Amino acid sequence: MALVKVYVNYKKSILNPEAQAVNNALQRLGYEDIEDVKLGKYFELTVADGKSKADLDAEINEICDKLLANYNMENYHYEIDETEAAK
Amino acid sequence: MALVKVYVNYKKSILNPEAQAVNNALQRLGYEDIEDVKLGKYFELTVADGKSKADLDAEINEICDKLLANYNMENYHYEIDETEAAK
Repeated sequence: MALVKVYVNYKKSILNPEAQAVNNALQRLGYEDIEDVKLGKYFELTVADGKSKADLDAEINEICDKLLANYNMENYHYEIDETEAAK
Repeated sequence: MALVKVYVNYKKSILNPEAQAVNNALQRLGYEDIEDVKLGKYFELTVADGKSKADLDAEINEICDKLLANYNMENYHYEIDETEAAK
């Protein structure tokens, strides 16, 4: 089994009020050395074996484009961990 | 500046309907080799320089416990990337 870790973040030009709220809360709590907060989504997909690396790449990109990320507002990147199955 | 990447996931025993919905959608779309989906949050904190590694660890743990993760339902882990500032 492969474990695919997908990170989805808002694009820089998109305002993210939730991240801003976290940043404000941190400042209020006195963590003044935190200069910026970004907040995104983190998916772990457990994928059955039997696909080549190229096919797996194609499938993951398709899944991200169709379902996990909104390409108008979000960027994604992913890592494939062949050895580790999702815990 | 250090970039701290914090991953917050639900504990195994906690039902995550959003992850389940994504998994159902993937099955419906024909991605039958996806066996499991986990969904969590991903924070990137940009932290000003000037703290020792131990102090930074202590601060990040405190922030996670207080604000970023709900310790009843969620686990977190983090990575500190000293060289890379948040893009």
